[in-house]
Amino acid sequence: MNETTTASPSRRTLLGWGGAGLALGAAAAGGTAAALRLGDGSQPAASAGDAVPFHGAHQAGIATPVQDRLHFAAFDVTTTDRAALVALLKEWTAAAAAMTAGREVGDGESSDYADNAELPPDDTGEALGLKPSRLTLTFGVGPGLFEKDGKDRFGLKSRRPQALIDLPAFPGDNLDPARSGGDLCVQACADDPQVAVHAIRNLARIGMGRVAIRWSQLGFGKTSSTTPDAQTPRNMMGFKDGTRNIAGTETDRLDKHVWVSEKDGPDWLAGGSYLVARRIRMHIETWDRASLKDQEDTFGRTKAEGAPQGKQREHDEPNLKAMKDNAHVRLAHPDSNNGVTILRRGYSFTDGTDGLGRLDAGLFFIAYQRDVRDGFVPLQRRLAAKDALNEYIQHVGSAVFAVPPGVRDKDDWWGRALFA
Amino acid sequence: MNETTTASPSRRTLLGWGGAGLALGAAAAGGTAAALRLGDGSQPAASAGDAVPFHGAHQAGIATPVQDRLHFAAFDVTTTDRAALVALLKEWTAAAAAMTAGREVGDGESSDYADNAELPPDDTGEALGLKPSRLTLTFGVGPGLFEKDGKDRFGLKSRRPQALIDLPAFPGDNLDPARSGGDLCVQACADDPQVAVHAIRNLARIGMGRVAIRWSQLGFGKTSSTTPDAQTPRNMMGFKDGTRNIAGTETDRLDKHVWVSEKDGPDWLAGGSYLVARRIRMHIETWDRASLKDQEDTFGRTKAEGAPQGKQREHDEPNLKAMKDNAHVRLAHPDSNNGVTILRRGYSFTDGTDGLGRLDAGLFFIAYQRDVRDGFVPLQRRLAAKDALNEYIQHVGSAVFAVPPGVRDKDDWWGRALFA
Repeated sequence: MNETTTASPSRRTLLGWGGAGLALGAAAAGGTAAALRLGDGSQPAASAGDAVPFHGAHQAGIATPVQDRLHFAAFDVTTTDRAALVALLKEWTAAAAAMTAGREVGDGESSDYADNAELPPDDTGEALGLKPSRLTLTFGVGPGLFEKDGKDRFGLKSRRPQALIDLPAFPGDNLDPARSGGDLCVQACADDPQVAVHAIRNLARIGMGRVAIRWSQLGFGKTSSTTPDAQTPRNMMGFKDGTRNIAGTETDRLDKHVWVSEKDGPDWLAGGSYLVARRIRMHIETWDRASLKDQEDTFGRTKAEGAPQGKQREHDEPNLKAMKDNAHVRLAHPDSNNGVTILRRGYSFTDGTDGLGRLDAGLFFIAYQRDVRDGFVPLQRRLAAKDALNEYIQHVGSAVFAVPPGVRDKDDWWGRALFA
Repeated sequence: MNETTTASPSRRTLLGWGGAGLALGAAAAGGTAAALRLGDGSQPAASAGDAVPFHGAHQAGIATPVQDRLHFAAFDVTTTDRAALVALLKEWTAAAAAMTAGREVGDGESSDYADNAELPPDDTGEALGLKPSRLTLTFGVGPGLFEKDGKDRFGLKSRRPQALIDLPAFPGDNLDPARSGGDLCVQACADDPQVAVHAIRNLARIGMGRVAIRWSQLGFGKTSSTTPDAQTPRNMMGFKDGTRNIAGTETDRLDKHVWVSEKDGPDWLAGGSYLVARRIRMHIETWDRASLKDQEDTFGRTKAEGAPQGKQREHDEPNLKAMKDNAHVRLAHPDSNNGVTILRRGYSFTDGTDGLGRLDAGLFFIAYQRDVRDGFVPLQRRLAAKDALNEYIQHVGSAVFAVPPGVRDKDDWWGRALFA
């Protein structure tokens, strides 16, 4: 096995479709090169066509430099059979390892369906010929997996992390149950949206009869950066927000604010994290009628440069007292929140029109943190109560998931320690 | 004026936000270099950051090499005042010229709002710092502009083209009125989705009180190529479809099948075209359970290479008799349709989930043709009656628009000849 091949920008092959051979696919499957994975102090490689290694201490897609596009899916578990669920997670893990390496589902397997035209292909095929595109697939488990309607569905109730709370209601929430919750989630990020959509679609297909998609969200543009000193992409309000994000190379901050430690517990989650997703609709027509001054006062930043008010450049240290009391940056800043810091990985969305001639657009907010009770919850309590931005936004979807540590090697699988 | 600057990959500037100056913006506004525009026999430049010239004999976004992403919007005209509508079209044209050149709305105008922080900025700002990204904005007028509910709303009834028919009902149609029709449309294509979304959002904003978005559609991935010999991107079924598309360099085929000629009439549409949009939902879960053989027989192509059945390469001339009678390629081929040929410019979409655990995904089909009655209508009649693909798809949205010729110069505007 060549341990470095997965990091090179290998093109997806047609292996498995024409029966041409299996050697390359098998070699890629065993690769565990970590050159692209951040969180271990290494630098990111920049090419959009590259593969991000799937195996490691942490799941990729958290500290990984933010990719351009997102497809996020929450699943309901429909089977009541623990063994069937475990089998699914093993199948998902194998498929995720293949797809993130730029291979098709089922490549290199002895039972490869595509060798038999009388059966459906293992892979749906729409990513054939596309590059790995830095695809990451990040897996999480929701509260409902541990207990639902008072039932301990899979014998996991005692293993529920204390920090995996049901999120409290916040002032102003207008949550749609059809866009909230979920027993499992997969965050697919890639520089090519077709690669991200393909990955979720194939996982859903593999899960047929055992899980069903509860909701899904396409994010067309990233709004955050986990690359130090990079400019923060603008959100749909035209502003840079969350400019002092945790960078994937900041090991200390990741350990302090993102990764669950062994002493935090539970054991099965050490090296993992917690994910909060919020679908935040923006009333962009109202926002667009606000003056430039009002907009800048609302965020506490200049619009053109994204600098904190009174400063010159985006990454200048903000002077919070130069902002209005209810400015978003002032309220969200760690100095106003006893140091509360989250890793943001949100994406802009536009999902057509709302029937009133308004775009259904906004921010699909994703945050990772070491403990939701010390991360999103206190931060959002403060923002929901006071933020000037509340005039222009509404939270319409919500979910929380515990994100297990990375898959260590070929024999490991998503959730193995949880089900052990 | 430097007549070549618009074709160079100039970055969007911050002009107009800081009052820093107007010279560059004004220079770009006057540029009419046609190096990137196809349909005149020139070759495309490849850089994704470039600007596509806005002015020309034909609107850009038809023969232009297909960009990666789409945001399409249909508008209802809400004003009853012809002068207000004309004023809007002039404002839209100026904004479109600016945005396609990579500038902000209002840049270079003496009344630039952004010089006054007490007013809303002219531009919503989320594309600041992004490249032009080959943005094209293609404008069309629907049947309702000429006559609605028996009323001649704007004195245009006599100017309605005979070829701008209301599309007939086709077998299998399941059209949602909320995703169909529209008095006006704008097709925004760009290699960066944020640039396309920004453009539609700003046009909607400019139109407030005069038009309202009726429906809009994001397309995350192109499914067609208008570049000769390029590989056709795969659709959500994993297949290459429409491989023998009209290329932007094929002047003869464009004149024969796409551009309305002077003798076709009406005068105001000479150099224009007709656009048919169909939202085609794919039952991908059903498709994914079909065998590889069934899938290939359905299209009449191999899945891996996209070659016509019995042939080796995608662009090999198909042998229609080697396919099943109801194979999609066989039925759609010009040889089966008295030479009927359309220019395809469709995009894949994924709009979340349908409430039954299925992805709401498929193809947002866009076709341009010289006459709908000799293009989409006979082709779709044949397909709707016989196509094997009908088992796996359903048309759920539909619209038709007449697309005026290009905006000639700074003094011209979208629809000028129509309203003359």
